[in-house]
Amino acid sequence: MTARTVASFLITVVSSLLATALLAAPGQTADCKPSRWGVEDQIGNANLINPASILAASKLIKTGKSYPLGIVIDSNTPAYPPRSLSLQVVQPGQQFGRIAFPNAIYNDDLLQIWLGIGPQIDGLGHIGSEGSFYNCNAAQDVSDINGLKRLGIENVPPLVARGVVLDMAAHFGVEFMQAGQFFGVDDVEAVQKKQGTPIREGDVVLFHTGWTDAKLASDPDAWVSQEPGQSEEVARYLAGKSVVAVGADTWGLDVVPSPDPDRPFQGHVILLKENGIYILETMNTGPLVRDGAYEFLFVLGPARIRGAVQMIINPIAIR
Amino acid sequence: MTARTVASFLITVVSSLLATALLAAPGQTADCKPSRWGVEDQIGNANLINPASILAASKLIKTGKSYPLGIVIDSNTPAYPPRSLSLQVVQPGQQFGRIAFPNAIYNDDLLQIWLGIGPQIDGLGHIGSEGSFYNCNAAQDVSDINGLKRLGIENVPPLVARGVVLDMAAHFGVEFMQAGQFFGVDDVEAVQKKQGTPIREGDVVLFHTGWTDAKLASDPDAWVSQEPGQSEEVARYLAGKSVVAVGADTWGLDVVPSPDPDRPFQGHVILLKENGIYILETMNTGPLVRDGAYEFLFVLGPARIRGAVQMIINPIAIR
Amino acid sequence: MTARTVASFLITVVSSLLATALLAAPGQTADCKPSRWGVEDQIGNANLINPASILAASKLIKTGKSYPLGIVIDSNTPAYPPRSLSLQVVQPGQQFGRIAFPNAIYNDDLLQIWLGIGPQIDGLGHIGSEGSFYNCNAAQDVSDINGLKRLGIENVPPLVARGVVLDMAAHFGVEFMQAGQFFGVDDVEAVQKKQGTPIREGDVVLFHTGWTDAKLASDPDAWVSQEPGQSEEVARYLAGKSVVAVGADTWGLDVVPSPDPDRPFQGHVILLKENGIYILETMNTGPLVRDGAYEFLFVLGPARIRGAVQMIINPIAIR
Amino acid sequence: MTARTVASFLITVVSSLLATALLAAPGQTADCKPSRWGVEDQIGNANLINPASILAASKLIKTGKSYPLGIVIDSNTPAYPPRSLSLQVVQPGQQFGRIAFPNAIYNDDLLQIWLGIGPQIDGLGHIGSEGSFYNCNAAQDVSDINGLKRLGIENVPPLVARGVVLDMAAHFGVEFMQAGQFFGVDDVEAVQKKQGTPIREGDVVLFHTGWTDAKLASDPDAWVSQEPGQSEEVARYLAGKSVVAVGADTWGLDVVPSPDPDRPFQGHVILLKENGIYILETMNTGPLVRDGAYEFLFVLGPARIRGAVQMIINPIAIR
Repeated sequence: MTARTVASFLITVVSSLLATALLAAPGQTADCKPSRWGVEDQIGNANLINPASILAASKLIKTGKSYPLGIVIDSNTPAYPPRSLSLQVVQPGQQFGRIAFPNAIYNDDLLQIWLGIGPQIDGLGHIGSEGSFYNCNAAQDVSDINGLKRLGIENVPPLVARGVVLDMAAHFGVEFMQAGQFFGVDDVEAVQKKQGTPIREGDVVLFHTGWTDAKLASDPDAWVSQEPGQSEEVARYLAGKSVVAVGADTWGLDVVPSPDPDRPFQGHVILLKENGIYILETMNTGPLVRDGAYEFLFVLGPARIRGAVQMIINPIAIR
Repeated sequence: MTARTVASFLITVVSSLLATALLAAPGQTADCKPSRWGVEDQIGNANLINPASILAASKLIKTGKSYPLGIVIDSNTPAYPPRSLSLQVVQPGQQFGRIAFPNAIYNDDLLQIWLGIGPQIDGLGHIGSEGSFYNCNAAQDVSDINGLKRLGIENVPPLVARGVVLDMAAHFGVEFMQAGQFFGVDDVEAVQKKQGTPIREGDVVLFHTGWTDAKLASDPDAWVSQEPGQSEEVARYLAGKSVVAVGADTWGLDVVPSPDPDRPFQGHVILLKENGIYILETMNTGPLVRDGAYEFLFVLGPARIRGAVQMIINPIAIR
Repeated sequence: MTARTVASFLITVVSSLLATALLAAPGQTADCKPSRWGVEDQIGNANLINPASILAASKLIKTGKSYPLGIVIDSNTPAYPPRSLSLQVVQPGQQFGRIAFPNAIYNDDLLQIWLGIGPQIDGLGHIGSEGSFYNCNAAQDVSDINGLKRLGIENVPPLVARGVVLDMAAHFGVEFMQAGQFFGVDDVEAVQKKQGTPIREGDVVLFHTGWTDAKLASDPDAWVSQEPGQSEEVARYLAGKSVVAVGADTWGLDVVPSPDPDRPFQGHVILLKENGIYILETMNTGPLVRDGAYEFLFVLGPARIRGAVQMIINPIAIR
Repeated sequence: MTARTVASFLITVVSSLLATALLAAPGQTADCKPSRWGVEDQIGNANLINPASILAASKLIKTGKSYPLGIVIDSNTPAYPPRSLSLQVVQPGQQFGRIAFPNAIYNDDLLQIWLGIGPQIDGLGHIGSEGSFYNCNAAQDVSDINGLKRLGIENVPPLVARGVVLDMAAHFGVEFMQAGQFFGVDDVEAVQKKQGTPIREGDVVLFHTGWTDAKLASDPDAWVSQEPGQSEEVARYLAGKSVVAVGADTWGLDVVPSPDPDRPFQGHVILLKENGIYILETMNTGPLVRDGAYEFLFVLGPARIRGAVQMIINPIAIR
């Protein structure tokens, strides 16, 4: 090999390596394995919901009691930075005694909001890794300032499923778990067994840690800074169970701080990106566990704003 | 009567009349009759929802098929002026290749929106008359720039009820009713009979006019300018039936233009203010009537922003 | 007078009184005297600005030193409720390594703001009384949810004038005046004399109280709750001098709390409504008085958003 | 060289190249040459403004005539996507006849806006290249969702300088230049000579193309899609002249489409990033050229929102 040949060879190799690096960095992971639901799928495990599963879940309605799983939020509700909201109630056309309608008066309202506040669903375009979101969607292609081009919240079908709440606080014998305290697969299995509520395919699983009941009002700064939550293994375990959605009575589901500082919110990556499983945050699980309502029909229709990543929600549990 | 006596009498009468006028104009209607649910009530006919009613309604689930009643909206969706929305999807902390998390990437979204766009629920603080909203709530006291002080959407309990959709278009033998065309009590009764779906206390009633399916995409300006809808008498009739909510596949439920130009949206006044009955707009009733799904379990949990007047929604029908 | 006659007379009188009451309450004050600038005028004393006045004022530039009269504001800046602001810097089209331009990168920014925050100009449509704003503009006619129909900030011509700052703090021998402390006409006259800066027709007059320098950073809650300021008589006195604008280094110019609780911000009514004189708030007068720069060329071009009531500003003083 | 040696060498070279690529892509350009104003400088050529330059420029005021260089904008004003604005005028505390103050009524206004609409200044953090903005500021470090950490608009000192408008339309003998038509250095030099207004250090230079006068109202879509403007060489030429700011009566200063498709808006890169020269867009130069007002005192104080990238403005020309 002459120097010239080496140089030429080098240029070829380096160009190729750089090209790969540049390709891989922002865009499509060449080696991405499509979702089990096909390369075009945008809804992940919501595919598991069908008339049969809904019919079966509806049998869980035995008393007719319903529970709103959303708490009330306002401009003081703490949220993951820089999220905030501001609401205005106004009276168009009725300024200074003006009459808009001869027979009626009215209020209207406008809102400036980050959609990841309080009770919320994380759509499949919320968290990804290595340049892509769920189902090999290249991050730089699906994300757009005007709204997601794929994986937007408008695609989410009615989430109607068996809901299971697992009382992790009771498992640990506490009113509420501590910030940074996590529960593992053994804990989750123990609670299923204790409650007699095994997790099944197609379920919506909610964890009760007691965190929001204990801290949101009394110490909002602490509430939003850290949280108890699932370990990464639990996310993987739930993915193995083929659930549709996983939620908790915390602002972020995963334990914060993460035991592994290099893998914060890894549960989000596992559920949303790797498995097409939705995440539900700040769910009001307290009333459910206080009633021993461990199983129920879960019903959620997120408002369908095209391209939204997340949505403020108030799912209904009925048992 | 001397001139002096007359003058004195006049002053008394006039003062009294003016005082009444001033009182009545902005504030509490002295002669307001409280709601049947008590002077403190903020939720109106949602009081009719209870475990027994929910349990009964849940029996309507027979096939497990679910329907999202919300359509997809975006910044192009026409709305009652000056309502509009704007969404942005952003990547906090990830600008220009910056890494927010060692193991993950993420999108967030912020929204500027008037809450009365597309599929929406009108709360009881939306439309009133003569200085007050539902249950003698003085308009100037409950309304506030930062959010309603009473009657806010956060008070709405889970709306879980028997849902009935009445196919008015089929009744008139058309694909869609015309702008300005209204249906009266006879029409509503005829359709109930024809469909075998009598309206009962505690129901959520939806009207299918075909308007949105026919016009929203093809002629958005026409869609939002006028609409077919209920006559004022229908609102009163439904109030007499003690329903919980009334909706339609139109942006405003009531016929527009109103047959009586002095009483536009009078159905709103009758339902919301006089009877504590919620209104649901731009409901996607097409799939229901095409399936002959005239009865179903209706489930709605509106996101609970304190003091909001309306809320973007996506109720779920299950049958 | 028979009973019948009395009744008839009563009805006439009462109807007439009520009609007047209803007319006067919201709308055009029948007895309103148009501005000295004519019934169509929308800019008030800005009419006093002309090439001759500007040429004369420009002679005040003697050293070439310039002063930004606006301070820096952000989402933490306190403001009169419910005013607030929120800014986002984003990178459209550049998410996750995407390239917007082959040769360039860029930041863009969006803002949600109440325009009455920090350094601001109050347009003539900001404060009125008895149903009207400046120049007999009926409040209910000129105000509109989409923007003022008249008197909007877009009408304000370049405010280029002789500027005079009056050091009221120095007059009282203090670093800063106290909340609720006001200065009267005598004080204003004394300072003019002491400084050798008589107020003249067409001037922009600024008061230095020391309030913002002393309190904004150290005690923001106190800063925004109260303030030293002009007495009502001073506003009238300045109107008599035919000034173009009046400002101060406080958030609201007028003393708060007002000595007369029934006349809060009466100086605003006198200046804006009764005399077509603009108000400038949170002006950074400290550097001027520290330099003894009591006279200067004042230059302000408020951004011209159609129908805006107020505008965030940063006027420039040059001497 | 053995195969092993070559491989080892390759690895070394490739690693090094990749490291450089990774370093260069997002962050600090190792080989960046700091600005002539020092490594800490954030204001670029605004450093050229000083009392002497202002005093000299003030001598250009000869008639006292003033010109607002900002046009009126509203929610219909076209803008570079996805920019838009929405304004609301409201009456806090005065709903339905409520009285906020015993003696006064008031309007307030809130605004949702992208700051790059209509008449605007581009701050030095707006456009950069190769991972950095002006003065070696790494893009990923200075940009932040909550506002620029450096180079924000709040740093811009009063821009008070000699203003020169060059009538390029007259030069080409047209009322307005065509979309895609650019002017070069020769053209700029010819106009300086013809007008007798040589560009000097510290100037603010504005180009009149006639574009906005001709197209904004009559064909807004065309107006915002393309534009006449400076060639890249003109930007370099002006940088060589050490001007403070460059503007035009177009939405983007540079010619669009660019003659070189690989270098769109390269003038922005040259001015903002490479030379710390501000850009002024949609300047209302028509009245200046119609008056033959080719030289004037230019005065601009942009509202100081911390971390803003751009700002809506209305500079004042005085001659």
